[in-house]
Amino acid sequence: MLVVMEHGADQAHVDAVLAQLETLGYQGKCLEGSERTAIGIMGNTGYVDAGALMQFPGVKEIIHVTKPYKLVSREFNPDSTIVQVGDVRVGEDFVVIAGPCSVESEEQVMAAAIGVKEAGATLLRGGAFKPRTGPYSFQGLKEEGLKMLQKAKEATGLPIVTELLSLDHLDVVMKYADVLQIGARNMQNFELLKAVGRTQKPVLLKRGMSARLEEFLLAAEYILNEGNPNVILCERGIRTFETATRNTLDLNIVPLVKELSHLPIVVDPSHGTGIHSLVAPLSKAAKAVGADGLIIEVHPNPSEALCDGKQSLNLDNFSTLMNDLNRMQL
Amino acid sequence: MLVVMEHGADQAHVDAVLAQLETLGYQGKCLEGSERTAIGIMGNTGYVDAGALMQFPGVKEIIHVTKPYKLVSREFNPDSTIVQVGDVRVGEDFVVIAGPCSVESEEQVMAAAIGVKEAGATLLRGGAFKPRTGPYSFQGLKEEGLKMLQKAKEATGLPIVTELLSLDHLDVVMKYADVLQIGARNMQNFELLKAVGRTQKPVLLKRGMSARLEEFLLAAEYILNEGNPNVILCERGIRTFETATRNTLDLNIVPLVKELSHLPIVVDPSHGTGIHSLVAPLSKAAKAVGADGLIIEVHPNPSEALCDGKQSLNLDNFSTLMNDLNRMQL
Amino acid sequence: MLVVMEHGADQAHVDAVLAQLETLGYQGKCLEGSERTAIGIMGNTGYVDAGALMQFPGVKEIIHVTKPYKLVSREFNPDSTIVQVGDVRVGEDFVVIAGPCSVESEEQVMAAAIGVKEAGATLLRGGAFKPRTGPYSFQGLKEEGLKMLQKAKEATGLPIVTELLSLDHLDVVMKYADVLQIGARNMQNFELLKAVGRTQKPVLLKRGMSARLEEFLLAAEYILNEGNPNVILCERGIRTFETATRNTLDLNIVPLVKELSHLPIVVDPSHGTGIHSLVAPLSKAAKAVGADGLIIEVHPNPSEALCDGKQSLNLDNFSTLMNDLNRMQL
Amino acid sequence: MLVVMEHGADQAHVDAVLAQLETLGYQGKCLEGSERTAIGIMGNTGYVDAGALMQFPGVKEIIHVTKPYKLVSREFNPDSTIVQVGDVRVGEDFVVIAGPCSVESEEQVMAAAIGVKEAGATLLRGGAFKPRTGPYSFQGLKEEGLKMLQKAKEATGLPIVTELLSLDHLDVVMKYADVLQIGARNMQNFELLKAVGRTQKPVLLKRGMSARLEEFLLAAEYILNEGNPNVILCERGIRTFETATRNTLDLNIVPLVKELSHLPIVVDPSHGTGIHSLVAPLSKAAKAVGADGLIIEVHPNPSEALCDGKQSLNLDNFSTLMNDLNRMQL
Repeated sequence: MLVVMEHGADQAHVDAVLAQLETLGYQGKCLEGSERTAIGIMGNTGYVDAGALMQFPGVKEIIHVTKPYKLVSREFNPDSTIVQVGDVRVGEDFVVIAGPCSVESEEQVMAAAIGVKEAGATLLRGGAFKPRTGPYSFQGLKEEGLKMLQKAKEATGLPIVTELLSLDHLDVVMKYADVLQIGARNMQNFELLKAVGRTQKPVLLKRGMSARLEEFLLAAEYILNEGNPNVILCERGIRTFETATRNTLDLNIVPLVKELSHLPIVVDPSHGTGIHSLVAPLSKAAKAVGADGLIIEVHPNPSEALCDGKQSLNLDNFSTLMNDLNRMQL
Repeated sequence: MLVVMEHGADQAHVDAVLAQLETLGYQGKCLEGSERTAIGIMGNTGYVDAGALMQFPGVKEIIHVTKPYKLVSREFNPDSTIVQVGDVRVGEDFVVIAGPCSVESEEQVMAAAIGVKEAGATLLRGGAFKPRTGPYSFQGLKEEGLKMLQKAKEATGLPIVTELLSLDHLDVVMKYADVLQIGARNMQNFELLKAVGRTQKPVLLKRGMSARLEEFLLAAEYILNEGNPNVILCERGIRTFETATRNTLDLNIVPLVKELSHLPIVVDPSHGTGIHSLVAPLSKAAKAVGADGLIIEVHPNPSEALCDGKQSLNLDNFSTLMNDLNRMQL
Repeated sequence: MLVVMEHGADQAHVDAVLAQLETLGYQGKCLEGSERTAIGIMGNTGYVDAGALMQFPGVKEIIHVTKPYKLVSREFNPDSTIVQVGDVRVGEDFVVIAGPCSVESEEQVMAAAIGVKEAGATLLRGGAFKPRTGPYSFQGLKEEGLKMLQKAKEATGLPIVTELLSLDHLDVVMKYADVLQIGARNMQNFELLKAVGRTQKPVLLKRGMSARLEEFLLAAEYILNEGNPNVILCERGIRTFETATRNTLDLNIVPLVKELSHLPIVVDPSHGTGIHSLVAPLSKAAKAVGADGLIIEVHPNPSEALCDGKQSLNLDNFSTLMNDLNRMQL
Repeated sequence: MLVVMEHGADQAHVDAVLAQLETLGYQGKCLEGSERTAIGIMGNTGYVDAGALMQFPGVKEIIHVTKPYKLVSREFNPDSTIVQVGDVRVGEDFVVIAGPCSVESEEQVMAAAIGVKEAGATLLRGGAFKPRTGPYSFQGLKEEGLKMLQKAKEATGLPIVTELLSLDHLDVVMKYADVLQIGARNMQNFELLKAVGRTQKPVLLKRGMSARLEEFLLAAEYILNEGNPNVILCERGIRTFETATRNTLDLNIVPLVKELSHLPIVVDPSHGTGIHSLVAPLSKAAKAVGADGLIIEVHPNPSEALCDGKQSLNLDNFSTLMNDLNRMQL
């Protein structure tokens, strides 16, 4: 439930409502938006009989939120969220995050960063801690890799998006990352969600490969509920019976997320298809469907990539794609 | 396997190759394209040792086709197929097929036809034979419905796309339809595929809801193998674990079909999402990803539709969508 | 809705109810069971206000059926259906249907039939019309194959279970088959369902590879609604993301079908796994979970089978399995 | 690759092989089995040309392991692994793990423990750290809950199976648990897998809800690769399009795991179906298919459970099931 306050309502009005909610046995949470202040009731599973609140001074209306997620819902916050990363305003600008799957060497990440910057990308991606299906695959360069990303950032000005796999990585990744990435396999690693929720660092939350939309939004709710509103959702393909592509990119959910939530959502056509020749057309489709941006794997030399070379663009193809995206008119 | 003939090759050269193939125990099929003549070997599952053919006069090259489908593959026919329906050239023009899920009455189908024509649609869809999950749902007006479509065609000039469910319907549907629609549930109704393959009428073949891409192309191969090259593929969403939408529209396969096959492919965002507010954004995504067109459910009064009202656009929304599609620049 | 009549109710009582229903705008259907007579109201989608019927003489109770399927539901018919095939009572005896995927030759089918009979199978399966994914695969021997099955039946006494793919095949298959098989790809070929529903021949209805349970039961409803109550359901595996097996055998639905429906259900572990070494353990699991029987692919020489050899048992392995099944005590 | 040593081979023979592998650039690992000693080569992705090793004294044969998993494969270890938990030998005895989804109170867990012990269960399950889809659901009693489990263990002698969600929980859970449970959502939480792999505590590893069999075995490989061989696999249902049940229990993989791996595998029919009336038939099916045991949710009062009451058995139904399982003869 959401108690929406009138424009003229002041702190005393808000406090009175909070006190009354406590009397009724609920816990209220004050949500200050740009256009209105509201008080949310968290964690109620049934109907809350709080009609009497309508008679409190400063109360404008009461909205019953019917979804299991609250803070991420558009009912709670009708204004679309803008997540600020350096100069980039995710949710307002169309953002392109690009870079290699894994950081492999200083040369590789520097070449990638300079190339994607020139082509027009505004954020740099690169994995230093890699979640690999088997223990014998390359697991990432860890802090050494983060330092290479840092140098690439210094050279290009591109803020860094990088993944952490575990609570153990939080401190070190916090030192270097501008956006903390939670990968698909960790979308329901609830302790990790809570931990990044206790920071104010922007979080890129990837959809789990068999996560229903409601579960995806509830994972984001874990982060917001800890106090971090800076969440960027990411559709990266779901697992289906289709084996011609690595995953099935589910663009249906992009406009549906826009209806149900105020959070920005970007699309990952690299993992979403698994085939480099499909990345460009699906990138255009993602822009057309209303996504707030893209995250694309780009490698200076895809055939030698230690990870996911099959789905990575080279710098030329990425540059062509950026031109095509800029030329698109909707 | 494909024996490609030189430009100057004549019928005698072709006949000599066909005769030699027969001697080797294979059946050849002459495929005359606009730019080249080739001879395909049908139905071989293993490797064909036909290297000696390279020494026959008029033979330019031999291509080993590695896919289980032959006639639909781009290896067999590098030129994209154009399917002519009235004045519309599917595969060249971006085609929009629109109209009600079911023909319900003359008024309804006439209003829909006039409305979608005005908005810019170039083909009219409408079901007279309806495949319904349960026997107690409205099953369609049958030939009476086809006659109503005929009147709408006369009034608007729009050619008719309509479904048949069974061999029994073929004769009557052939009388009225400009395009024979094979629905998702019949994608592997092989006897029906063969029957429409023995006509020269264009066929709109919808992907089965759990069909892998290879199976989809093999279903089309059944039609081409009977002699009908006029097949339009249609991606209409696949069945996955996601329940927030009716199906998961798989736009990944649109550019993949373009790589693997010469057939045109259109997209059905109505069944692909099941939610009318998602139809417009997914239509734009389909155009951006490179589809050859759309098939969209439009009803003059969706709330009273006997079938699929939830996913149907009204005429106003359809008109807005058409404007948006026309304004898009890629 | 179901109007259950008292034991002493006679035809006049039934007629009065039917007349009253007609007055109310509904169509009633008399369902005579072994223990009770009831009148079903078909095709109502909403709530039927027929409380006044309780005051009609002979009416015992009114049951509101909440499912979209009626005739197949256990609410309509609490007694489990027994389908009689020759001497075999499917739904009472644990039935084992065995034989080759395709009829390939008289020798092959005769060897298979004699072998499975000796091992204890009570019905013979074999395909003469084959639904093949591609047009270049072996499509079956058609009526010639049916005649071979007939000879095998004469030699062994085993009734024949065989598939038809199309309305066109109905007459010829009716001449030879004791059970008409509807394959997974045709589960929603509604015209075919209606056609076999107009016979009284037992029907083995396989679940579509992406059919939800409700859709499966509604497909059976099509057959019963035409007047044929002799339906045997068959779980044969569903299509999922798992590629280690051909399909995922869904044994969950066996006891769930028993709750929701009175129809018998058998299990196909051959298609359900696609791997011959898994057929025996899954056969035992199917018996343990409460299935009414099995349908198993057995070939005298699986390595030379024209179809599905990978999942076929040879006669020795089938014989071992039958011994194991007979020894099982639940 | 696996170098199998002869029975008479001694340490010097082994050392010579290890040294030679190092010379060739590989890392060998000595695997001492009850019947043979072998040396595995870890982490090679391509073919290892080590034929010359056949001439080393003590070398019996060289086996090329074709799977990406090594230590968990039956090629590496033909003997089935027995995991000892208290007096219970998982992989030899048919083990039944039972208890509530969540520990809710001392009374509840004590009643459950005493009840399942009387009925014949040999291990006690109960969650103190709960992975919940949304942040507002009951998240478990944490260490307080573990202490309640401890008391129930003292009263009944039943060893404890309980879940941890995070590295943070490892120390406290190690104090109380006899088996560490890794839930489905954490099957690819690789840091957690490595952490439990560095203990010698038995681990119950649940299959992820969209994990292919190969991924499941590779998750186990992470644990074994860290030095902990005591892994019990658990099939708990996969996510499919079917909505009539919570998950689709995939019994196909039980005998397939037995072919491919030496690890024991148990089945969770509670999560695998989500419906209490299906738990008993699927438990019997799991035993019949060859599983090494079951893990079943049992609650003294399912209708008041804070979690998963819909799929929990009460004590009477559990007792009946245990009798049925004991009576079963295979």
